[in-house]
Amino acid sequence: MRAEIVAKQVRAMAEHGLDAIICSSPENFAYTAGFVVPSQPLIRHRHAMTIVTADGRTAIFGVDMEASTIKRRLPDMPARIWAEFSDDPMLVLADQLAGLGLAKARIGLEMDYLPAGDFARLIAAMPGARFEHAEPILARLRQIKTAEEIALLSKLSRIADQAITDTLAVVDAGDSEMDIAGHLTRNVYSLGAEHFKLLIVATGERSVLPNVGPSDRILKRGDVCRVEIFSVINGYQAGVCRTAIVGEAPPMADKIWAHLVECKYEIMEKVKPGASCREIYDAFIAKLAKLNLPPISFVGHGIGLHLHEDPYLGMTPVLGKPGSDAPLEENMVLGFEPLCYDTGYGYGMQNKDMLLVTSKGSELLSDYADTDRLILCGTAKQGGKVKAVA
Amino acid sequence: MRAEIVAKQVRAMAEHGLDAIICSSPENFAYTAGFVVPSQPLIRHRHAMTIVTADGRTAIFGVDMEASTIKRRLPDMPARIWAEFSDDPMLVLADQLAGLGLAKARIGLEMDYLPAGDFARLIAAMPGARFEHAEPILARLRQIKTAEEIALLSKLSRIADQAITDTLAVVDAGDSEMDIAGHLTRNVYSLGAEHFKLLIVATGERSVLPNVGPSDRILKRGDVCRVEIFSVINGYQAGVCRTAIVGEAPPMADKIWAHLVECKYEIMEKVKPGASCREIYDAFIAKLAKLNLPPISFVGHGIGLHLHEDPYLGMTPVLGKPGSDAPLEENMVLGFEPLCYDTGYGYGMQNKDMLLVTSKGSELLSDYADTDRLILCGTAKQGGKVKAVA
Repeated sequence: MRAEIVAKQVRAMAEHGLDAIICSSPENFAYTAGFVVPSQPLIRHRHAMTIVTADGRTAIFGVDMEASTIKRRLPDMPARIWAEFSDDPMLVLADQLAGLGLAKARIGLEMDYLPAGDFARLIAAMPGARFEHAEPILARLRQIKTAEEIALLSKLSRIADQAITDTLAVVDAGDSEMDIAGHLTRNVYSLGAEHFKLLIVATGERSVLPNVGPSDRILKRGDVCRVEIFSVINGYQAGVCRTAIVGEAPPMADKIWAHLVECKYEIMEKVKPGASCREIYDAFIAKLAKLNLPPISFVGHGIGLHLHEDPYLGMTPVLGKPGSDAPLEENMVLGFEPLCYDTGYGYGMQNKDMLLVTSKGSELLSDYADTDRLILCGTAKQGGKVKAVA
Repeated sequence: MRAEIVAKQVRAMAEHGLDAIICSSPENFAYTAGFVVPSQPLIRHRHAMTIVTADGRTAIFGVDMEASTIKRRLPDMPARIWAEFSDDPMLVLADQLAGLGLAKARIGLEMDYLPAGDFARLIAAMPGARFEHAEPILARLRQIKTAEEIALLSKLSRIADQAITDTLAVVDAGDSEMDIAGHLTRNVYSLGAEHFKLLIVATGERSVLPNVGPSDRILKRGDVCRVEIFSVINGYQAGVCRTAIVGEAPPMADKIWAHLVECKYEIMEKVKPGASCREIYDAFIAKLAKLNLPPISFVGHGIGLHLHEDPYLGMTPVLGKPGSDAPLEENMVLGFEPLCYDTGYGYGMQNKDMLLVTSKGSELLSDYADTDRLILCGTAKQGGKVKAVA
């Protein structure tokens, strides 16, 4: 387990009067254990959990199919392995918790993750225990990144940025969105990512669609291309989006882009410890309105083990989430994305970057591409050479 | 919505005495609606649901961020859109259900998907309704594929198979696992997949690990390479795994492989309507034991909108799932994978294929690669030409 994260949880338990915190979502498992159980995010019933007690003991709970991974990553950790095809995992978990002296404990659980059916069986098996929402506590801890997390998110930001930028340099009119996807995923891996998420390739008239993958649409002169990818290592992810043009910019594109770039620099200027998330958002929306562009729900959000984490630079968040009006703090990492999905001119534009809140201000983590102007596709194609990968 | 799937649900409701079925998981949403809400599988709280009533009415429930996708895919469908940053989605859902006359209804819900916290708020908002587990019903419906589903899974099987086979033909000693991943993902997209899942690249000593992505490990002569990928279109997925050798086979590899290939043909021979899942599994385990190879939990499973679906060719499945001893039926699609993760010789081997249960027997859907012998890496490298993609 990661000692620094366990210590954070122990301090939080003292503050909230909990006896244990159980992490059951893929992201909070990875947060505590330091690695991802590979099939957990893919096969929902393959529960894997970390258990941390108020007195600092740790234990792990996992499915037999992943026992070898758990043993390899945490050879000395007490682990309870349940059998996928014969055990009720909730009964095994209840027994493990009883063995840790937690049968009558006050236990923090991820109620936003554990399915209703599992929870019903767990409380039936542990009638003496009290279960409480642990996700606000975990979400709060995860807002402030450790040095190790910042180093990883910084690396991931560069990977995503360079993968996209180098891809846009080698595609041009006549290539398809699938070609973009092919170059992009290859770049992401060769630059060192373990995996990626949320590949968006939206060109031409498709560029107005928020979250679409590549199609066989062929690029043509005057297209706008929105390309986004999240690179992933150890469950951590960094998302970058770039907007490019094929050959020439369509009407109004340079002007709208200049506006979004101004937004980027204004946000970077405003982000610092103590700044209000809501004020940054309101300033962005006001700026969009100047060009008669429609408002969006947020212009940024925390990021790390999940695509979206607190705090949001945006509207009041959903139930039970810490307020979006909270001040920014040092060592938060934000994805921020001045964008307009539908400019009214038949195309959408988006510039997503990764930003670290430093002691004095902010530091751009995705600093590979020059986004001051719209990126031009195919600049590396004529010479026949792709820019060397660092 | 897909009329054929809606009709299946209506018939199942009559049989089970339900007034409505709500699909809330990404796979059952896609099953009913015919498309994936892109961010639903990635951002858990962005609930999207389909509602089908016993009298055949249909409705949809989705988050504002995905409203444009829903409108584009189902322009005429009654849709209730909830606001991500201001609504409690469960209150909006309760109101929508009341509007459909379901306030006091008996409603089938995916208890294995809906988080415990959401369910608690939903039942509080709908004190007159009764909620029951819908997943056994949905799992049963999904076992028998429609003609449309079979055509799609057939296409996906070929994509995954060819993507891996063509990749193995162009990598060789000196290339890295990242190079394999790069070629593979590029091939998957250029062959027409929308996305992929569970990319496994496990070579040399890493080939014993069940579910690992690519690393920077460099291939060397005598390596065994286990390479797997699931290609995805519209939420449907087909998984193929191939095992290759670099230069020459390590000790015992040809012999163990021949044994696994025998298993493949025996399984294909045995699979037909009426065959017992358990007997097929037992025969496979007995055959593994002849080579002193360790048993595995299953040698196959249904596949479609989820990586693993019923029925399993294997041990008794988890709680509440239809029995694995049920007979096979026409139009089931199975992933089956004679494998041995740890042969005891420092490498693992796996051959995963896709199989359709036909009226008379079975049909191999992943029929691109010749797996009768271990695939040799780099066969296309000397000539400098990659086999043309169909």
